[in-house]
Amino acid sequence: MIKAGVIGVTGYTGIELYKLLHSHPATAIAWLTSENSAGQRLSDVFPCPWDDPLLALAEAPLDRADVVFLCLPHAASMPAVAAAHAAGARVIDLSADFRLHDAAVYQQWYGVPHSEPALLAQAVYGLPELHRAAIAPADLVANPGCYPTSVILGLAPLARAGWLAGQVIADSKSGVSGAGRKAKLSNSFVEANENLSPYSIGYSHRHIAEMEQELNAERQTLDGVGADWRIVFSPHLLPVSRGILSTLYVTLPAGVDEAAVRAAYAEMYADEPFVHLLPAGQVATLHHTVYSNRCAIGLTFVPGTPTLIVTSTIDNLIKGASGQAVQNMNVMFGLDETTGLNA
Amino acid sequence: MIKAGVIGVTGYTGIELYKLLHSHPATAIAWLTSENSAGQRLSDVFPCPWDDPLLALAEAPLDRADVVFLCLPHAASMPAVAAAHAAGARVIDLSADFRLHDAAVYQQWYGVPHSEPALLAQAVYGLPELHRAAIAPADLVANPGCYPTSVILGLAPLARAGWLAGQVIADSKSGVSGAGRKAKLSNSFVEANENLSPYSIGYSHRHIAEMEQELNAERQTLDGVGADWRIVFSPHLLPVSRGILSTLYVTLPAGVDEAAVRAAYAEMYADEPFVHLLPAGQVATLHHTVYSNRCAIGLTFVPGTPTLIVTSTIDNLIKGASGQAVQNMNVMFGLDETTGLNA
Amino acid sequence: MIKAGVIGVTGYTGIELYKLLHSHPATAIAWLTSENSAGQRLSDVFPCPWDDPLLALAEAPLDRADVVFLCLPHAASMPAVAAAHAAGARVIDLSADFRLHDAAVYQQWYGVPHSEPALLAQAVYGLPELHRAAIAPADLVANPGCYPTSVILGLAPLARAGWLAGQVIADSKSGVSGAGRKAKLSNSFVEANENLSPYSIGYSHRHIAEMEQELNAERQTLDGVGADWRIVFSPHLLPVSRGILSTLYVTLPAGVDEAAVRAAYAEMYADEPFVHLLPAGQVATLHHTVYSNRCAIGLTFVPGTPTLIVTSTIDNLIKGASGQAVQNMNVMFGLDETTGLNA
Amino acid sequence: MIKAGVIGVTGYTGIELYKLLHSHPATAIAWLTSENSAGQRLSDVFPCPWDDPLLALAEAPLDRADVVFLCLPHAASMPAVAAAHAAGARVIDLSADFRLHDAAVYQQWYGVPHSEPALLAQAVYGLPELHRAAIAPADLVANPGCYPTSVILGLAPLARAGWLAGQVIADSKSGVSGAGRKAKLSNSFVEANENLSPYSIGYSHRHIAEMEQELNAERQTLDGVGADWRIVFSPHLLPVSRGILSTLYVTLPAGVDEAAVRAAYAEMYADEPFVHLLPAGQVATLHHTVYSNRCAIGLTFVPGTPTLIVTSTIDNLIKGASGQAVQNMNVMFGLDETTGLNA
Repeated sequence: MIKAGVIGVTGYTGIELYKLLHSHPATAIAWLTSENSAGQRLSDVFPCPWDDPLLALAEAPLDRADVVFLCLPHAASMPAVAAAHAAGARVIDLSADFRLHDAAVYQQWYGVPHSEPALLAQAVYGLPELHRAAIAPADLVANPGCYPTSVILGLAPLARAGWLAGQVIADSKSGVSGAGRKAKLSNSFVEANENLSPYSIGYSHRHIAEMEQELNAERQTLDGVGADWRIVFSPHLLPVSRGILSTLYVTLPAGVDEAAVRAAYAEMYADEPFVHLLPAGQVATLHHTVYSNRCAIGLTFVPGTPTLIVTSTIDNLIKGASGQAVQNMNVMFGLDETTGLNA
Repeated sequence: MIKAGVIGVTGYTGIELYKLLHSHPATAIAWLTSENSAGQRLSDVFPCPWDDPLLALAEAPLDRADVVFLCLPHAASMPAVAAAHAAGARVIDLSADFRLHDAAVYQQWYGVPHSEPALLAQAVYGLPELHRAAIAPADLVANPGCYPTSVILGLAPLARAGWLAGQVIADSKSGVSGAGRKAKLSNSFVEANENLSPYSIGYSHRHIAEMEQELNAERQTLDGVGADWRIVFSPHLLPVSRGILSTLYVTLPAGVDEAAVRAAYAEMYADEPFVHLLPAGQVATLHHTVYSNRCAIGLTFVPGTPTLIVTSTIDNLIKGASGQAVQNMNVMFGLDETTGLNA
Repeated sequence: MIKAGVIGVTGYTGIELYKLLHSHPATAIAWLTSENSAGQRLSDVFPCPWDDPLLALAEAPLDRADVVFLCLPHAASMPAVAAAHAAGARVIDLSADFRLHDAAVYQQWYGVPHSEPALLAQAVYGLPELHRAAIAPADLVANPGCYPTSVILGLAPLARAGWLAGQVIADSKSGVSGAGRKAKLSNSFVEANENLSPYSIGYSHRHIAEMEQELNAERQTLDGVGADWRIVFSPHLLPVSRGILSTLYVTLPAGVDEAAVRAAYAEMYADEPFVHLLPAGQVATLHHTVYSNRCAIGLTFVPGTPTLIVTSTIDNLIKGASGQAVQNMNVMFGLDETTGLNA
Repeated sequence: MIKAGVIGVTGYTGIELYKLLHSHPATAIAWLTSENSAGQRLSDVFPCPWDDPLLALAEAPLDRADVVFLCLPHAASMPAVAAAHAAGARVIDLSADFRLHDAAVYQQWYGVPHSEPALLAQAVYGLPELHRAAIAPADLVANPGCYPTSVILGLAPLARAGWLAGQVIADSKSGVSGAGRKAKLSNSFVEANENLSPYSIGYSHRHIAEMEQELNAERQTLDGVGADWRIVFSPHLLPVSRGILSTLYVTLPAGVDEAAVRAAYAEMYADEPFVHLLPAGQVATLHHTVYSNRCAIGLTFVPGTPTLIVTSTIDNLIKGASGQAVQNMNVMFGLDETTGLNA
């Protein structure tokens, strides 16, 4: 059994991770931490039957875990990752702290300098569909953000083929759990219910950095990719608890037709257990993927134009966070990648 | 035009009151206060086109209003009511501070002594269907609570007839706006959505005091009412923005049949513009009353038993708060009672 | 008092229209029809206190109304409009049947030939912000669609200035009442709740025809407008009862800067009572406009790019249907345009 | 591997059952039927990646299944159960057809005569917490209704102790999936959203028969139980997709105190893997049990009165239907009772 520790278990990604690990056949939960609720039990904090104790991070026996998951806010995660790594555990960090390879880019978007540049150099971006081989032996995996997971998987076959050019619009809609488990007026029921709110539109949301890094990396696998592209990313707060739908608008290069595009997606995702490529005529909806670790992708071509509309959905707490973390753990520990993620 | 001031306009009852007064044909808004947002404009705080300035209470020209509405938390309201009254305005207080005639009962339920006993002695409980004649000349009206409005109107004909006896169960369900406009984890979208939570059950919710006061007063209009009765009040947090449904279970005295009960309700509410007595076979639902100042009441008799089930719904922000406040203002200023409340 | 008849009152736009007319100070409801519920009363069909009888259309005294509103499905509306017009009433048709000036375009999008080409030639597209002068004397007004209202008002200042060019993306999200009041699995609670579904994407939704007609007409007010433009319209079914948000992506021509764009919107909408132009830094949300006849418009410029993001919201049942119909009636009968629409 | 066939897989309980069986480690899905969608694949009917073919019942190889689950409407299930049983499969029927031991009572509540009285005599009511020993060897298990599961588990310890007397009120609230997957106006999004509707109140809902049968049977384990009791059952349609909360009001007999009641519940449910007895001070909410096979039970005593309030929640599709069916299968086939139900 893999002994797993979870740092910051009392947020929405933390509890989702707990549930996945608790029913995972090859994992045993070693310890849990929560700074806000240390000394209490999980059932004091969530409506659940599990009485596991919650420790302060300082008390957690880091060295008694084979793998440590961190569900902390950005910046807070850096020193905790370093401590868990120093204690000998393999680390899966769900924060943004180790996702961007370039510390300067991190500082630009997150406003704080990176305190662990040596560790950052070792971190692997934990999107198995792109980086499976690098994740397997990694000691530190940076679990992707929720919006980036939906956007990158939705566009990666185009990037890889060199077909991403010009302006790409990502009109994304996310359930409220994406904003975290905290008391905040804008996330309160009456404010979010029966509402839909664009926010951070106009090249300002931090997740743009991940999308650019990963999609540019895919493009650079090609020789002579020259054409520039730019993402316009518009997140919207959606009155559902969970799920992300990204509606992506791409102008295809001249000569690239529907058959070529469908073939590129089919080739890239043919053997992916968690990518559900929809047949022609179908679009992705939240119900395709909520409560699963899947990403569903639909392709719609606007007749008589070079416009491709990609619809891409995930459950933001599972494929967009904790399920993907377990998927990464499975890859890192040599398990079947779907173990504990079938339900 | 009646010049109206509103103290505490930036909560849910405050903004609802603003909207009603803004479109009321006989009212002009004189000034608005908000301690948290003083110096801003209404449109900075709510998604609306109205740019009225928000004052601190200390700056408000209390003497330039014919009527002052207070939408403050309990305890905070007492001194503000006294100040508005001293400035010469007629006062409608939406807090709980002047609803209970007995200062000792107030202290028992709200945990603070009453600081304005002289004013309390003048206050009228502002449920027009019960106290219209006393409201008309009043200088201080205590607007009822939301749950009590639904429960008292649902049971008053029984109380008046002397048919309230034994244990009466009020299983009430309220939308989340009833909890106020504040950042609180239990009111956050993800916690309340797709959920239903009983809370404060077992004779502990403060609104019980109002229900007992008013229903006992109705009973005391009869000679020789002896039988004791007791309310069991169970509020539930419902995943809707607004609306209250109270499902009320009453055991009728021997010899009181369906026809007699229907006659009692019909007699009491025949001319009430805001009570919608449903025909036999119908039950009250939230959709009967949301976005209106009405209370809908349905009567269901359990065959072969003395059990009567009363279903009673209101919009907690309108008939349960701000609409009722405007109804009281209409009564106090000699206007048609429905003015500005038809929409 | 204007005597108003309503044909097809038992759908969502019909009942909303009833409520508006019922509280309108210058209107009296003359008669109501409903083919499905003829012989019943309004309170049998909706949870409301109004007992107005419902007639079959064949029984309705068309000649006893000054104005007739039609809330029928497309195609069914054509003969009923003709009958009401022949009976001498001024007509406001909420269906799509008289919105498209060109009968061939109508047939192309709606699949049926137009049976009333002579009447079609007289019909005015009832968007008062664009066609107020033509609406005032009209005998037949075609009330705009809900999506088109949000998109056309969001883009009209650009069209009028000649700045609409290239591909314009309208990513629109609508509440479920837009799909009408009928039993249909895709509109059922469990299918739509906690979901978000794109539908009719890829140049297939019928409302595109209205958007093109009206925005092209605005462009043609200019000399020498040559650049072509094309709309990509993506509707999404949103888990709310009412409200539309259109997120519009426009590439501005070289040399058109933020100040010029803001000036164009300010000029066009300066005196419009129902257009709420948001200050810089704000985006439109559903809560800006639900339960009102307003359209809220926000302008966001993507730094360092020619991309403008317009956010535009309305209540689909009010400004997108019945409120706009009453606004048209006010214009047609010489009333203040806001009469009965303030609430 | 247990070979499982599912009859009527395209309703909400059917698809939930499919998901549970699909990830169950000891089960293989043999075949699926759907009368409405025969000839299609599961992914044509639900947003999912599973392409299993859907057969008409007449084509299903009944004899190639070890266990057959039926998710049909009542009355339709009787002949299908008989056919599956005759083909040699063990049968778990999720309809109401075999839940009531007395064919006359069945006919009284369901309005049709029972066509399979011999089979009815063999059927076991499939609530494992009450009838585990009888379920294990059974060939035909009648899976309980959703409301009855929440009410019976909430009251069984009282019934067994002989403390159920007088009037017991069950004020129950259910998510909309309980009404089935069909196009029906009352279940449409706009009708159910932001609403709460009592229905079938006043001793008229069919689930009362199950509650009386099972709770009376528990009482009859005692000698000399004489006091009569009666249930008043009030279902309400709740604007959530899934989950039931029953708020149960019981008047305890003289001399029965809180300690005794808590001991009775603790004793009955001590070793139950799927009953979560909450500590004093907590109430059951939907979030305790949705997406799990658990029933959560909270006990609240009204001070100074003999009134006990039991709050009991389940997921209506899992513990109230398909999860309980899998739990029954586990018991029948000698598996650990929690197999495939941990997630």
